[in-house]
Amino acid sequence: MVRTARILLFVAALATSAGWWARAGEVGLVEKRVFELPSYTTVGGKTIAPVRVGWESYGRLNEAKDNAILITHFFSGTSHAAGKYSESDPAPGYWNAIIGPGKAIDTDRWFVLSSDTLVNLNAYDPKVITTGPATINPATGKPWGTEFPIVTIRDFVNVQKALLESLGIRKLHAVVGASMGALQAFEWASAHPEMVGRVVPVIGAGWVDPFLVGWLDAWATPIRLDPNWNGGDYYGKTPPSAGLAAALKLVTLHARWIEWADKAFGRSWAEEGKDPAAALGHRFKIEAALEATGAARAKLADANHFLYLVKANQLFVAGGETVEKGLARIQAPVLLVAAKEDLIFFPRRIEETARAIAADGTPVEIVWLDGTDGHLDGITAIGQAAERIKAFLER
Amino acid sequence: MVRTARILLFVAALATSAGWWARAGEVGLVEKRVFELPSYTTVGGKTIAPVRVGWESYGRLNEAKDNAILITHFFSGTSHAAGKYSESDPAPGYWNAIIGPGKAIDTDRWFVLSSDTLVNLNAYDPKVITTGPATINPATGKPWGTEFPIVTIRDFVNVQKALLESLGIRKLHAVVGASMGALQAFEWASAHPEMVGRVVPVIGAGWVDPFLVGWLDAWATPIRLDPNWNGGDYYGKTPPSAGLAAALKLVTLHARWIEWADKAFGRSWAEEGKDPAAALGHRFKIEAALEATGAARAKLADANHFLYLVKANQLFVAGGETVEKGLARIQAPVLLVAAKEDLIFFPRRIEETARAIAADGTPVEIVWLDGTDGHLDGITAIGQAAERIKAFLER
Repeated sequence: MVRTARILLFVAALATSAGWWARAGEVGLVEKRVFELPSYTTVGGKTIAPVRVGWESYGRLNEAKDNAILITHFFSGTSHAAGKYSESDPAPGYWNAIIGPGKAIDTDRWFVLSSDTLVNLNAYDPKVITTGPATINPATGKPWGTEFPIVTIRDFVNVQKALLESLGIRKLHAVVGASMGALQAFEWASAHPEMVGRVVPVIGAGWVDPFLVGWLDAWATPIRLDPNWNGGDYYGKTPPSAGLAAALKLVTLHARWIEWADKAFGRSWAEEGKDPAAALGHRFKIEAALEATGAARAKLADANHFLYLVKANQLFVAGGETVEKGLARIQAPVLLVAAKEDLIFFPRRIEETARAIAADGTPVEIVWLDGTDGHLDGITAIGQAAERIKAFLER
Repeated sequence: MVRTARILLFVAALATSAGWWARAGEVGLVEKRVFELPSYTTVGGKTIAPVRVGWESYGRLNEAKDNAILITHFFSGTSHAAGKYSESDPAPGYWNAIIGPGKAIDTDRWFVLSSDTLVNLNAYDPKVITTGPATINPATGKPWGTEFPIVTIRDFVNVQKALLESLGIRKLHAVVGASMGALQAFEWASAHPEMVGRVVPVIGAGWVDPFLVGWLDAWATPIRLDPNWNGGDYYGKTPPSAGLAAALKLVTLHARWIEWADKAFGRSWAEEGKDPAAALGHRFKIEAALEATGAARAKLADANHFLYLVKANQLFVAGGETVEKGLARIQAPVLLVAAKEDLIFFPRRIEETARAIAADGTPVEIVWLDGTDGHLDGITAIGQAAERIKAFLER
């Protein structure tokens, strides 16, 4: 009884002092910071001045500054990988399941930082800080629009490198990222092998294959079809919200899998009494739900940023030349985490990536996630890989 | 020498008498016929008057009229399954590899017939005869538009049944169809078990699962986004060609697979000297090729017909109730032909379909196609199943 009372008191004290959220095992409240480079020259030789990106961190950088782990985000993601900004946030960052005190990426041990990429999709999310077509170009006083230079995954990495250098970090304990974040992880290990101790690419391959080049274009197509896109010139006018919503609907669907649809929707109707068999406009629940999701996601997103991200992904081959050469440059041990039913980075491509990395003796392991969400299992089922990731990072 | 001369003479005679195409093993020239029903009442209780559909046949109906095999076509297909309309046609019908004298579906033995469905996509193909939103409704003197009733796979089957009855055919030796044609084959065997001797559903499952319901909606989305679609009211005005082309681009891509893209395009650029890394508008070859294919296919297609086909497919559950009940009604032996890398009807769904059919003892076999084209292997790699289909039909 006394012990129970003490535990309750302890819990109550925690709840009072730092909110219910800041219980043991959670990173607690996090804040967004800004990193600014007065000027950045892209891989393509163009200048962006200034570059500003948001970042956040969990855990503490040690004195030797050798305990940093970089988290790189996915196509529609942000730097918000763990914790909450305020106690009232409905959900924590996307990888909260594996980032925190005692978790797979143990913030008692590692200084975990995560940054928004250039041309981040969610340009209108108040917590996202990025530089892209929607950003005012001080040289003109107007948004860059399609005058913004083409940027690549290497550019994302180079800006992150400048951020790390500004913090005095010369070597990363590891780079960990999902999907487009995996592409950044490969690029980090290939472009700057001396700076990367370990790599954990999740649901991503060492290159964007031609089929995915085609799919990325298919995702982008509704934006270009929307008359409001106007060749990318829509700032200060009506933005191409319908096209952007349709694009995000397609991304949402493509990142899932048959079991997700079975479980979440089945053959339910969108509205009671409106049998889809009775009229062209009567829909199934999955159609209405995807449409609502696309529209909701579009509210914080910018259409040109979407197109620039598509381009950055289409151009990706680790290291920039051939995938064999690029992956051969990786020296750090690699833990690939992959989803069995991934329709974006197919299992075969993950296996080919592993073979190319291992060709010169670099250690590679693969952990297969067995979920219902397809590509998105890299987020929703990441807990299955938690022990393997923890052991890999601490080995 | 004499023998060689004789062979050459024989070949020359063939070429003179019936054209180079009509050599042994080919069905030769075929002609399109029209079947008309003065009035048809849909499953939903609406009347379409008249219904006209095109059909063609290969081989001869025997006196007992018991040697007929019905071929049912896919989403973007037509009744042109084999042969050529004229010697100058660039290619024969889509399943010419398995339909012809001595082939898997042996036209020396079987009377093979194939009909255009209701709301056939290719409404403006001069060789397609169909009834749908683009058809003039004699009652109003104007195209039906979205006043056209919702039609289902069962309606397609019922119109085919009326066509068969008009020819005096009371029982089919077999129904064979790919993709949406497989859905029709399941529906035939479930709705009219007494009329179907054998079923060969190729690259199709016993129901359209919720994930595919979502994908069909995704295919249709660009049409609804195109302002020229105008709620379906565009006849006599500018049609939504851009939206329809984008929809067909998506269908084309979805029906393929990573190896197809590797082989056909790799990372080639669309235009020499226009590096995709240099400008947002510079593209990869796969993007330009898919766009050109979509635009070319859109020229003969009707946007509303596309939407009606989407609806018919989304509504499909064999037999119309639950898939278990629907497939249990099938009494005829079933040979499923499926593609290992199919992204539309996933292998798991084919296996589930087979189990549901077999649950009450109905014989089922599966032949797996191992190609590079994904779903489309059901057309391009069908030759791999030729011997199994031939044996199944002749058993």
